This record gives sequence, C-alpha cells and structure tokens, in this order.
Amino acid sequence: MARWEPDAQARLQNAALELVARQGFERTTAAEIAEAVGLNRRTFFRHFPDKRDVFFAGQDQIEADLVAGVTGAPPGESPMGLVGLALARAADTFAHLPREQARARQAIIDAEPALLERERQKFAVLARSVGDAMRERGVADLEATLAAESGVLVFKTAFTQWLADGESRSLPLIIAETMAALRALYVTR
Amino acid sequence: MARWEPDAQARLQNAALELVARQGFERTTAAEIAEAVGLNRRTFFRHFPDKRDVFFAGQDQIEADLVAGVTGAPPGESPMGLVGLALARAADTFAHLPREQARARQAIIDAEPALLERERQKFAVLARSVGDAMRERGVADLEATLAAESGVLVFKTAFTQWLADGESRSLPLIIAETMAALRALYVTR
Repeated sequence: MARWEPDAQARLQNAALELVARQGFERTTAAEIAEAVGLNRRTFFRHFPDKRDVFFAGQDQIEADLVAGVTGAPPGESPMGLVGLALARAADTFAHLPREQARARQAIIDAEPALLERERQKFAVLARSVGDAMRERGVADLEATLAAESGVLVFKTAFTQWLADGESRSLPLIIAETMAALRALYVTR
Repeated sequence: MARWEPDAQARLQNAALELVARQGFERTTAAEIAEAVGLNRRTFFRHFPDKRDVFFAGQDQIEADLVAGVTGAPPGESPMGLVGLALARAADTFAHLPREQARARQAIIDAEPALLERERQKFAVLARSVGDAMRERGVADLEATLAAESGVLVFKTAFTQWLADGESRSLPLIIAETMAALRALYVTR
C-alpha cells in the first residue's frame, strides 16, 4: 500500500456510507471504516477531525463555491444578485453529483441526531461565511445576513427536492426554480 | 416548602442563569440548580428533560404563538401574510420580555456548543411546525417551507438585533423592520 493516498478521502467516505448504512452510525467505528479500505485509524482522523465529518467533506466545497460566487461578482451587484451568483457557482460544481449516493448519505444523516446536528451546524457556518463575504463587499450588516441566510435556505430546500424519490430535474434547475418561488412569495404580497 | 410549586420552572431558570454565568455550563449540575431554589434533582427533570432545556423553555411559547398566528388567520391569506400574522403574534407575547435577562441567557448559549446546538434544533422545529400549519391550510409544500423558514429567519435575526448593546427599539418594531428589509431585497431585484 503506497504511503501517499491521493484518493484516501473519497475511499473512506464510500466505506463509511456502506458500513453505516448496514450497521448504523453508533456501531461503526472510525478504525473499522479505515480498515475496510486498508488504512488505519490515524489516517482516518488525519482526513476527518471526528467520525461525523466523513459525511460532510463536500460542505467545504459548497462553502468555497458560494463565497467565490460573492467575491468574484462584478462591482455594484445587489445583495440578491450576489446570492444568485453564489448559488449558480455552487450548483455548477454539484451538477454532476451522483444522486443515488447523495440519497444514501442523506438517509444516514436523517436517521442520526448527531449527524443532523452537524448538518445544521455546517449550514449555519455556510450562511455566516457568505454573509461575511457580502459585508466585505460593503453590503450592510442586516441585508448581508438576510440575503446570505436566504441563499442557504434556497440551497438547502433545493437539495432536499433534488433528493426526493422520482425527482428528475437537475440541481441547478431546482435551485433556480426555488429561488424564483421564494421571490414570488415576496413580490406577490 | 409547599409541595405544589407553581413558579418552580421560573425559579429554576433564574437559578440556572446565575449559576451557569458564574461557573460555566459543564460545571453546573441540574442538582445544584435545583438545590439553589430549595428543590431536588428529580423536580428539575420533571420540568426540563435535560440540563440544556432550562434555557429554552420560552421556545415552546414562541412555537405556540407562531402556529396560532397561522391557524387563526382569515381564509385566503397569502403565505407571506400568514408569516406576518405569525410573527405579530409571537412579537406580542415577547413585547415585555426583560432585555437584560435575555442578554444574559444568550451570552451563556453563545459560549457553549451544546446549547448552540440545542438552539439550532429548536429553530428547525419551529420552522417545521409553522410550515406544517401552513400546509394544513392548503399552502403548497415548497411555498410553505420557504415562507416558514423565512419567518423563522426574520424572528431569529430580529431577536439578535434586539439583544445588541445600545439597542432600544422594541422587539415587535425590529421584527416589522427586519421583515421589510427582507422583502426589499427581493422587490429591488
């Protein structure tokens, strides 16, 4: 086994999905996940600070995408324009995410309070980072918070729809339609 | 000490605020909080299922208010109209909440990950309950989710502003202004 493991992280994530789906989160140890792909416990914790993180590695990419969408926007863009660009950037990265695997992951998260808690924490961090990126562009504090939280709400709601049984629309399309539905709620009344 | 303790819950909450502010959340036991007001550990757990809940008893009232605002609305009200009525109802109950005590409570929550986690969970439950109340009125699933989450976002953001140093506006006024700021984000663009 080579010492340098370029895809160790992805292999650990796949093994975790499979083992936890079969035997539950509590009963699956980090050592066991690592062993399933020929690695050891220490290597696991080099990639994931705690056992829950193996299901959330993708969130760092979402965060980077959303923030890049805000920081890379042309000057003078409105707060909701920034949200639109942030979501478009994130949607692009996830356009090719395998839906079946994402469903398996979400089923595991929904069944385990410790994972649901981590998911909520990650979304809170996401909203905070996007809001900070907006404040750095000079968006007022309140508007930045509301716009960033709205953006994360749209992403979260769109992602849930994308995972639903029988859903065939792409994530980018669902994000755009969810954003339009949210806007319509405000514009109508 | 009378066996019937009509205000036991409030006394336990006050004692918890004081003890935890002084010695931290981890180092304060439920038994100690109970003892401080002449009650025992069992009585504490009759009022609060776990030690964290002593800081969140008010959330049940917020939930009841928000839901009552939705269920009591006149027929044909739009989703955002329902949100407005739900928030107005909650704001009314909290119009006389003592700000200093609420600040002390929030400082404790912000300093303790286990309490922050519980707070996020409570807000998630709030959004779910308000959304369910809307769905029962016939609001479509996606619109109910987006409107309810927006309402909770407004409440959360307004509450944070209300707690800020030097803030003197009432909570109902801040809620109304935050709602207007959110709407303006969508209407402007």
